[in-house]
Amino acid sequence: MAEKGLLIVLSGPSGAGKSTVISSLMRMRDDIRFSVSATTRAPRPGEVDGVNYFFRTHEEFARMIGEGAFLEHAEYVGNRYGTPAGPVDEQLAQGWNVLLDIEVQGAAQVLEKRHDAVSIFLAPPSLRELERRLRGRGTDAEEKILGRLETAKRECALAKNYAYIVVNDDAETAARELDAIITAERCRSGRKLESIAKGDFLS
Amino acid sequence: MAEKGLLIVLSGPSGAGKSTVISSLMRMRDDIRFSVSATTRAPRPGEVDGVNYFFRTHEEFARMIGEGAFLEHAEYVGNRYGTPAGPVDEQLAQGWNVLLDIEVQGAAQVLEKRHDAVSIFLAPPSLRELERRLRGRGTDAEEKILGRLETAKRECALAKNYAYIVVNDDAETAARELDAIITAERCRSGRKLESIAKGDFLS
Repeated sequence: MAEKGLLIVLSGPSGAGKSTVISSLMRMRDDIRFSVSATTRAPRPGEVDGVNYFFRTHEEFARMIGEGAFLEHAEYVGNRYGTPAGPVDEQLAQGWNVLLDIEVQGAAQVLEKRHDAVSIFLAPPSLRELERRLRGRGTDAEEKILGRLETAKRECALAKNYAYIVVNDDAETAARELDAIITAERCRSGRKLESIAKGDFLS
Repeated sequence: MAEKGLLIVLSGPSGAGKSTVISSLMRMRDDIRFSVSATTRAPRPGEVDGVNYFFRTHEEFARMIGEGAFLEHAEYVGNRYGTPAGPVDEQLAQGWNVLLDIEVQGAAQVLEKRHDAVSIFLAPPSLRELERRLRGRGTDAEEKILGRLETAKRECALAKNYAYIVVNDDAETAARELDAIITAERCRSGRKLESIAKGDFLS
């Protein structure tokens, strides 16, 4: 049987550069899978149930909440989104490290339920640099940028609740740090002793 | 001012391959220093005070114990050995990661005094493999080999007291895991928040 994988919770404000860092990380490791969220919103053209999302009705979603089927869930502009525990646990049992790319409220819900999750906050080098990055996109209205900066400030104040903080000054370096955290966490004595209990070095 | 370094405590039974793994690790990182032990034994030809050891008289050593100057100390065949805290703390303050290559009793003393130390146990893949390695040297008498195996068993039973266990199946892989643990531990949120408190991402 494969060694159990890690549940990795990654949060960070918009503009911290999460998607670039995750792309680099995926080139470094081939033992990571993403969780698939459930949602009540309608599929967009090309979206496939079970791949992009698990598409569920409001009734189904409510029932799943009642059954405690979610690691976390939230509502945005009239639709519900959530991370079903079942598929995550299946992947973990198969030995995959499962990455939840999730905002701070959802992360808090997961960390309350799963004390063995590895929590990582991806931080911008500074709020000044974050502002520069958000403006650099050149696509957002001033009001939207200021709103994002306010949210980022609130989110960064929660960084202390995470086990690790990776500062994304350079995406490649940040990805290497994520890679190191995953490797190190798999060497934690509690996990290691579980996986080598069948070996004989302790007997 | 440099970010404070990590105090790393590395233990493992004779035959676990510690020296090979440490050599590989030193090729991977240039931010590690070793601690210099103090001893009451006489210098051997070529040994330099303050480099190989701090050579001290029995009286000086006893006084240092009284002053609480040691992170750990022990006695072997009539001579005393110990790790003075002062030079270690100086190196840590300068930003070096300081590696203490130390047996299990000494490690326990250090971990009791320094809760921020990172403890790593280097384990052989199995006792059978350890026995094979000890016999493979072809230099030791049977009695000595059996004694070492008994000691190794006792030491491996203490692996659970360490934060990390690295199984040395292949020295290069084990060194990469040590490297990852050091990188990851420097991203721990407690340490990171201390070092970026002067930055403004939280303000």
